[in-house]
Amino acid sequence: MSSSKSLRAGIVGFRGYSGNELLQILNHHRFVAGIPLEHRSDSTTASPLSGQTVKDQDLSVVFLATPPEASMELTAEFLAAGAKVVDLSGAFRLRTVENYSRWYKETHTAPDLLNEAAYGLPEFYRNTIKHARLISNPGCYPTAANLAIRPLVSAGAIHLEAGIICDAKSGVSGAGRKPSMKTSFCEVTENFSAYSLLDHRHVPEVLQNSNLEETQFSFTAQLIPIDRGILETIYFRRATPEFTTDHIYQIYQDAYANEPFVRIHAPGKVPDLHSVRRTNFCDIGFSQQPDGRTVVVAAIDNLVKGAAGQAVQNMNLILGFPEGEGL
Amino acid sequence: MSSSKSLRAGIVGFRGYSGNELLQILNHHRFVAGIPLEHRSDSTTASPLSGQTVKDQDLSVVFLATPPEASMELTAEFLAAGAKVVDLSGAFRLRTVENYSRWYKETHTAPDLLNEAAYGLPEFYRNTIKHARLISNPGCYPTAANLAIRPLVSAGAIHLEAGIICDAKSGVSGAGRKPSMKTSFCEVTENFSAYSLLDHRHVPEVLQNSNLEETQFSFTAQLIPIDRGILETIYFRRATPEFTTDHIYQIYQDAYANEPFVRIHAPGKVPDLHSVRRTNFCDIGFSQQPDGRTVVVAAIDNLVKGAAGQAVQNMNLILGFPEGEGL
Amino acid sequence: MSSSKSLRAGIVGFRGYSGNELLQILNHHRFVAGIPLEHRSDSTTASPLSGQTVKDQDLSVVFLATPPEASMELTAEFLAAGAKVVDLSGAFRLRTVENYSRWYKETHTAPDLLNEAAYGLPEFYRNTIKHARLISNPGCYPTAANLAIRPLVSAGAIHLEAGIICDAKSGVSGAGRKPSMKTSFCEVTENFSAYSLLDHRHVPEVLQNSNLEETQFSFTAQLIPIDRGILETIYFRRATPEFTTDHIYQIYQDAYANEPFVRIHAPGKVPDLHSVRRTNFCDIGFSQQPDGRTVVVAAIDNLVKGAAGQAVQNMNLILGFPEGEGL
Amino acid sequence: MSSSKSLRAGIVGFRGYSGNELLQILNHHRFVAGIPLEHRSDSTTASPLSGQTVKDQDLSVVFLATPPEASMELTAEFLAAGAKVVDLSGAFRLRTVENYSRWYKETHTAPDLLNEAAYGLPEFYRNTIKHARLISNPGCYPTAANLAIRPLVSAGAIHLEAGIICDAKSGVSGAGRKPSMKTSFCEVTENFSAYSLLDHRHVPEVLQNSNLEETQFSFTAQLIPIDRGILETIYFRRATPEFTTDHIYQIYQDAYANEPFVRIHAPGKVPDLHSVRRTNFCDIGFSQQPDGRTVVVAAIDNLVKGAAGQAVQNMNLILGFPEGEGL
Repeated sequence: MSSSKSLRAGIVGFRGYSGNELLQILNHHRFVAGIPLEHRSDSTTASPLSGQTVKDQDLSVVFLATPPEASMELTAEFLAAGAKVVDLSGAFRLRTVENYSRWYKETHTAPDLLNEAAYGLPEFYRNTIKHARLISNPGCYPTAANLAIRPLVSAGAIHLEAGIICDAKSGVSGAGRKPSMKTSFCEVTENFSAYSLLDHRHVPEVLQNSNLEETQFSFTAQLIPIDRGILETIYFRRATPEFTTDHIYQIYQDAYANEPFVRIHAPGKVPDLHSVRRTNFCDIGFSQQPDGRTVVVAAIDNLVKGAAGQAVQNMNLILGFPEGEGL
Repeated sequence: MSSSKSLRAGIVGFRGYSGNELLQILNHHRFVAGIPLEHRSDSTTASPLSGQTVKDQDLSVVFLATPPEASMELTAEFLAAGAKVVDLSGAFRLRTVENYSRWYKETHTAPDLLNEAAYGLPEFYRNTIKHARLISNPGCYPTAANLAIRPLVSAGAIHLEAGIICDAKSGVSGAGRKPSMKTSFCEVTENFSAYSLLDHRHVPEVLQNSNLEETQFSFTAQLIPIDRGILETIYFRRATPEFTTDHIYQIYQDAYANEPFVRIHAPGKVPDLHSVRRTNFCDIGFSQQPDGRTVVVAAIDNLVKGAAGQAVQNMNLILGFPEGEGL
Repeated sequence: MSSSKSLRAGIVGFRGYSGNELLQILNHHRFVAGIPLEHRSDSTTASPLSGQTVKDQDLSVVFLATPPEASMELTAEFLAAGAKVVDLSGAFRLRTVENYSRWYKETHTAPDLLNEAAYGLPEFYRNTIKHARLISNPGCYPTAANLAIRPLVSAGAIHLEAGIICDAKSGVSGAGRKPSMKTSFCEVTENFSAYSLLDHRHVPEVLQNSNLEETQFSFTAQLIPIDRGILETIYFRRATPEFTTDHIYQIYQDAYANEPFVRIHAPGKVPDLHSVRRTNFCDIGFSQQPDGRTVVVAAIDNLVKGAAGQAVQNMNLILGFPEGEGL
Repeated sequence: MSSSKSLRAGIVGFRGYSGNELLQILNHHRFVAGIPLEHRSDSTTASPLSGQTVKDQDLSVVFLATPPEASMELTAEFLAAGAKVVDLSGAFRLRTVENYSRWYKETHTAPDLLNEAAYGLPEFYRNTIKHARLISNPGCYPTAANLAIRPLVSAGAIHLEAGIICDAKSGVSGAGRKPSMKTSFCEVTENFSAYSLLDHRHVPEVLQNSNLEETQFSFTAQLIPIDRGILETIYFRRATPEFTTDHIYQIYQDAYANEPFVRIHAPGKVPDLHSVRRTNFCDIGFSQQPDGRTVVVAAIDNLVKGAAGQAVQNMNLILGFPEGEGL
């Protein structure tokens, strides 16, 4: 099948859940073949890309499904070789090295690339993405949160002093493939647990893209005993009584009328994780009380719209293919 | 084993999850034997208690693990026969018939008993419970919520205008044993869904017992693909800077120092559902940001502290046994 | 998308798991659109196909994802209207009405069609299927069992007097979508149970297609707490020492060399359910002891190769499309 | 609570699933307190029991929930200090060092103790156990298999030339607590897999205790996506027609009439894993076809009757307590 494909996309970190999902998605892409690239973090060799040199590869784009440190190291190398890079780590998501140091607890080793990186949320940054060499693919939690929150913040619909609460839940694949006690079957099954209370490293991605102050956005991540899926339950009060159910619905419809991968539910209807499982959709629904308290539910598949699917969506944009190709 | 037990407790609705849990718990009770009572809602016979009359039974207490309508019908009958009643339904939890009609969407048929019923949350109403004939066993969600919230509200620690958010998650047994599409395996597994957004019928139980206004408390219930357990993630802002982490910890410790079934985690540590599975404990932990935003996590087993365990705890109080007997 | 599709396939029983899977698969079929057809078993109307007459529909093929009684009633009607029929029920799988009565505990009401029905296991009956008007789509368990056993029986590799044991396990979707206690989440999770010990109604489908006597084939079905997938562990002794590991491997390779949907694992490697999840593959592996005792493991997705996927494979054969189209 | 307990039992390996289960069970034991003992396999220290010497401890019995190598090393030490030892590893289950080497792929380092060890299956070896210093606690799979098979073999009910098939399934805790890819949540959930086809190291324990030849017993282990429980589906042909359903039922009843932890289901009824979850029971049911093919289903909780519960049962026997104390 791939023999007829005209372009090649390298995947570093293809053994992880996101990298493997990239391979699966590209299997169904008509124009681009996914090429697994060995990296020393996967093996015992010393070179960044064992047994391969970047120039030997004729790669239009490279996906980095690697930890941030590896992404910071590899990106310049691939860019220099002429490939576009879509990085799925957190390396290039924040706009300043200070912010990076604070949330990732380490020094940024490729600060020059921070300015160049386009944040890969097509619904908000499509034109920038199209012309970028380096795409920073958003985190899974921020993808759902920004899609759910930003249009409302922009419209002034939210009473920001009272704050936004985002109670987030994720399937276990979000924790990566490396075996650990925390993700072992017996610890997860019949359990439910919270972690990173109010200080998850994905928080600044939401602040930055939805224009929020830190005190305005409270976020907690939790682990659901399922393999994939993120559901976020978001609470706020409307800014003024004019932001009725109908008005909020209209804001969402205006924001996403032409978006192929965002689906807005009718008021009172909210998505569940089966709605989006193995799809690139972000489904959003909400319900409001007469007194203005409002709850929004946003759902994505963390490995698709929250990682590999969105990465392919970004690749399609930079390579000029139909945005939904392969998805 | 039960031959040596001196007292008998009838259980109506013993085939449901709560009723069955009552039987299991009483199996380990040294003094009270659990006696399954047939009820027409379990069968096709016309009499309320098929093939039995209440007076034939020498029952010290009767547990009603029945829908509210059945509880409203049966309670007076059992009380008249001289038994104490612990009702696990919502029939007698709210203080006014108006409130009952609003949240349960039906008319209350035993209004005289509403005043008499003691709300069976021993941590707050122990003395009243001890002298009551009729105990209204709390709902599963309100048990965790009231234990987590009420001491803080009483201490004035919460900025009530900004409101309290309670994002609640429950295992599937909370929906009862009757087969339905909503609780079928294939619909629940690998899924996560929200329901009763901001208008769950358990809300007024929290308002009433934690002294909150409706606009101050936002509650959403969600279904976890596990059989049992409730975890509630509760967000608020502190009322004033004096309510630091240490202060809040002290409030909790003061409130529950002598409570056998409430465990307070050290600041920054939060419970998960494995912590409380098949126990009568309510575990509470919390974390606070320097700016005062606070998140509390409370966990119970919905069938034990959220239903049958608490019902036995109440029974122990009214019969004069050690409060933790059998638990 | 379906606007460009040239043919239409009706689906009766589209709300069940198999029917819904058919709709999903046909969504990706380039040439055939899936058309949901209302049937009285789904609703309260009296006519077999409420609000529709078969002739109003221009249907090339109709899938019956219905109980056997409905299939026996509807098949003649659709055939008379000129449509080909792929029946997913057990109505036309057995060759005699006596056998049907014995295993399905009811009288066959369309005996004339029994002779006409082609058994829809393409790996063995491809040419017959191509020319049939009525395809009887195999049961989920027999699909895996016949693919694993028949080539070995044909080659004389199995010591039939010692018998073949087929220990089968299925995900819960195999029990259908109708809510029942047996398939409710709390009964299934953390459980594993056996049913239909040695007398499952799928047994005669294996006997008939693998040429076995009843005493030569022992089958038990079991319920795994997962949504989809069938794994069968099959035990036998080799007929003579010549049927070594290599020989058996060769038999399988010869049988399935050109089959797109059967994958044979190297000796000692066996498939698990993740290998075949959401695919139309039947994966087969085996291991043999030096003394000749052999175990074969066969895995399919019960809703795909065990139902809807195989049904589409059959449809492709009778309509002349590439056999794997849409799969 | 343990302050009133008169005896102390040490537990080496208390952080593993079996060791932790021992602690839980002993929490409810009236006479024996469980004492966690640090061991270098749990830590980084060099001494076998870090920071403790055996003689400092006044231990009546020591449970070794350790790998076989550690058990072979520690047993003599504890015996010399005057403690009885219940070893939960495979170190002392087989009767010869040759057999041990073959199945455990390593040399036995404490051959002198092999003869002394009593096999801790109380239903068959109660009197021997009572007088032993060293109990070898049976494997989880062999516990269920021997209880199901041995009485029938002893009665001559099984056609041994045709062989016995034991298709075994276990929850994930059977694989131990150490994180690995094989037991990570995402690999296990929605999956089902077979391993150790026909050559599991538990096989010789069944051969030895049920008096079978290797070719007469075929065993395969499989992983269920649940945390605990073993279900074995066992197939055989009756030796002669006299071994009817009633006869087999009688054999089981005779064998286990006075056994507190073996429950025989009426013919045609078989147990599931919920029947035995968190109990020390082994439940056995069976069904027979008129032609003599028979299937037996045996169920245990692998951490209780399959490990810690049976270990406490053995401890009760050697210390003279009621056999079911704490269970």
